Amino acid sequence: MAKRGSNSKYDYDMLVIGCGPAGQRAAVQAAKIRKRVGIIDKREVVGGVCVHTGTIPSKSFKEAVVFLSGYRQRSVYGAGYRVKSDIEMSDLTFRCHRIMQIEIDVIHHQLQRNGIEVIPGHARFLDEHTLEVESSEGFTRKTAEKILIAVGARPHRKEGIAFDGKHIFDSDDILDMVKIPRDLVVIGGGVIGTEYASMFAALGVNVTIIDARKRLLGFVDEEIIECLQYQLRGLGVTLRLGEEVASCDLRKDAHQVITRLKSGKVIVSDAVLFSAGRVSATDDLNLEKVKIDPDERGRLRVNEHFQTSHEHIYAAGDVIGFPALASTSGAQGRLVSCHAFNIKGNEFYHDSLIPYGIYSIPEISYVGKTEDELTAEGVPYETGVARYREIARGHILGDENGMLKLIIHRDSLKILGVHIIGEYATELIHIGQAVMALDGDLKYLRDTVFNYPTLAECYKVAAYDGYNKIRLSAE
Amino acid sequence: MAKRGSNSKYDYDMLVIGCGPAGQRAAVQAAKIRKRVGIIDKREVVGGVCVHTGTIPSKSFKEAVVFLSGYRQRSVYGAGYRVKSDIEMSDLTFRCHRIMQIEIDVIHHQLQRNGIEVIPGHARFLDEHTLEVESSEGFTRKTAEKILIAVGARPHRKEGIAFDGKHIFDSDDILDMVKIPRDLVVIGGGVIGTEYASMFAALGVNVTIIDARKRLLGFVDEEIIECLQYQLRGLGVTLRLGEEVASCDLRKDAHQVITRLKSGKVIVSDAVLFSAGRVSATDDLNLEKVKIDPDERGRLRVNEHFQTSHEHIYAAGDVIGFPALASTSGAQGRLVSCHAFNIKGNEFYHDSLIPYGIYSIPEISYVGKTEDELTAEGVPYETGVARYREIARGHILGDENGMLKLIIHRDSLKILGVHIIGEYATELIHIGQAVMALDGDLKYLRDTVFNYPTLAECYKVAAYDGYNKIRLSAE
Repeated sequence: MAKRGSNSKYDYDMLVIGCGPAGQRAAVQAAKIRKRVGIIDKREVVGGVCVHTGTIPSKSFKEAVVFLSGYRQRSVYGAGYRVKSDIEMSDLTFRCHRIMQIEIDVIHHQLQRNGIEVIPGHARFLDEHTLEVESSEGFTRKTAEKILIAVGARPHRKEGIAFDGKHIFDSDDILDMVKIPRDLVVIGGGVIGTEYASMFAALGVNVTIIDARKRLLGFVDEEIIECLQYQLRGLGVTLRLGEEVASCDLRKDAHQVITRLKSGKVIVSDAVLFSAGRVSATDDLNLEKVKIDPDERGRLRVNEHFQTSHEHIYAAGDVIGFPALASTSGAQGRLVSCHAFNIKGNEFYHDSLIPYGIYSIPEISYVGKTEDELTAEGVPYETGVARYREIARGHILGDENGMLKLIIHRDSLKILGVHIIGEYATELIHIGQAVMALDGDLKYLRDTVFNYPTLAECYKVAAYDGYNKIRLSAE
Repeated sequence: MAKRGSNSKYDYDMLVIGCGPAGQRAAVQAAKIRKRVGIIDKREVVGGVCVHTGTIPSKSFKEAVVFLSGYRQRSVYGAGYRVKSDIEMSDLTFRCHRIMQIEIDVIHHQLQRNGIEVIPGHARFLDEHTLEVESSEGFTRKTAEKILIAVGARPHRKEGIAFDGKHIFDSDDILDMVKIPRDLVVIGGGVIGTEYASMFAALGVNVTIIDARKRLLGFVDEEIIECLQYQLRGLGVTLRLGEEVASCDLRKDAHQVITRLKSGKVIVSDAVLFSAGRVSATDDLNLEKVKIDPDERGRLRVNEHFQTSHEHIYAAGDVIGFPALASTSGAQGRLVSCHAFNIKGNEFYHDSLIPYGIYSIPEISYVGKTEDELTAEGVPYETGVARYREIARGHILGDENGMLKLIIHRDSLKILGVHIIGEYATELIHIGQAVMALDGDLKYLRDTVFNYPTLAECYKVAAYDGYNKIRLSAE
């Protein structure tokens, strides 16, 4: 590729391993200032887990489930309401493939337009600045001044569980399922497990979620999770929390799976989704050559600039662990290149202002602190709550269980956190995020004019609620 | 009702005429500081036009149309896709009544909780502080220190048009239509006309819109209207712009309507919606008694505090004309009571930051200035545009025509306007509104982390686009 006027002794200014959101964004950011960038990826096509087996397929699947199951309309047209009475897996995954292809094209086009070289193959470290790339065409060596490890993660496959892609699935092959099962056991109540559990439940599948912890999604505000668990149970989900799996085996006739819990309970189901954690895909990078030492789940430790123990070798995205969301991985990738090449202007990136989005049914999103965190820190707060059923658009959309909670500092009236569960949560959160980032407070949300009818009005209703609580206790 | 410790010589601190959004919000705001408030309304039930024939029914209808017609899914599942092959009016209005009842209950409860007296009857001025209320129980007199006229508006019924509620409708009775027509002529391309035209078009009705102006919705940014008109034509709508109606008559067999244009064109249709403007409902208030003089459409003139020619007589909401949206009317009502009773704290209410929402299919919303306005003012701006088809959630939702446009001051990088057409537009606008109100700029939208996949990402994509244009022209 064209040497963009660099006198560097290396082939590239930056080599990126992995073409998911972190790798892409890092590469594009560096290329924008005319750095010579290459992205190495094992897959023949770009996009990473995000496009191929993760975010995009699962979110497309969710949209199809919500629509075809008539989930949104049940409270209006009655619980038996369905768009299609006999939903097949193929109805639900039909759109996934099309959307994936579009996303791949978009990414390809973007990389190409920015002059980024895409190198198919498997990368391994030879030394601190040299990678060996193994592809169908043989081995090549590439050197770079900076290297970013953005190889992502894959589902953790517990030993002793007979994954067969027919009855026992992990999150990578669950959507290859041919037939919608009558019952599904989900082992692991993290983000992926909760998302799929809720989607299948909305389809009418009898779902059981098993997790050793006492609640789903431990990092999310407790009141929101209470609301989620309540709604999941309303969809017929059985929650086996504080329970551990002893074994999970195919029945002899190979048509069903028997899951035994350590407490002695036995669950027979058509299918099992094992979604208990992910492992970073660092095992075949030859990291020992450069003395980088992953943890027991393959994760790499980095500092606040995403540097590993070598200051020119960065790691970002799922490979470094929590939160492992496409949005945060992309942001990290961009920060890597900003740090590596001294690009300024990230004043609005604060860890504390990153939104978290969980695409369960109902959707969850939040930004800022939870009540538990603030209580532990001894910060005096009050909450302001709005329920979707208090506002017109909640009724129009048929979501009467949704809620938005503001957490407010009771002296400064600053917004410390926004927590939403319900329709559009992942979109609505950005209003509160902007108010927090731009130093607004409760007065803004109380006084501003919102379109009517919108779900965004929840911010106003919640602001009034918060005001009333603070004022009453001050009187 | 209880005298809340006032020594006033009047029966009430404030009497409000009309129980729509303006009246309600004014009453609640005044009641919160323990003023004695009464609301007089002709209807037996609260809510005004907003709940009974305007905002709520039309938005509920829209949601039903979008869902039952499969409008959102067409680009994914194919143009012939429908949830219900034989849609009846009753399917579409089924939910309206339920939602209206819920809204009425919510308002009733709120007025009651705040100790506001609801007085059914027709109000007329006897003098500047006295109203006579005529109800089924006879006549009573009520005096008040302050009076708010919030009587709203009704459809303008042009003379010579034979409104019959069967074939020729105004916007108040259009949803009483028994059967979905095969073709519909909409006279008047304002907000109401455009909204209903698009909804019926989405149902597959052959719609013709006639307006004397050369484009729909004259106050909206031109590029957005171009996009709207393009999409409406794609739905099969015929636009007869720059045309005037000469006559509109029932055929002798009374099954169809013949509309003749001044240009000589003739359109035969099953139904006509006449939506050419509204008239403020001020004709029977006895306003001549207090020397308040409405304009030719019954509208009242007010100053920036919503005061009429008498400083203690206010007018707000649809009765004062544009924009006549439920959201702005509510805000005006609140401001009236803040001004009347010296309540502080409206620092975030600026006319320039009010969002406008048009619930057409596709939805439109904007805040701030249009390109035409800024060009006329000589402000140097650049635009940043994102199309829904550039981002993942656009594909997932099946909206590939949506777009978001930022208008940016090219020196300060401040956001001067945000214009959105497409799914969720009325919700998404509040992100840009917060950034404008809290003095953020393009950098915020570029650097912040958005949930992925969301439509809100359009802000980021548009910010990059704007940046690139400004930077390129600066180089």
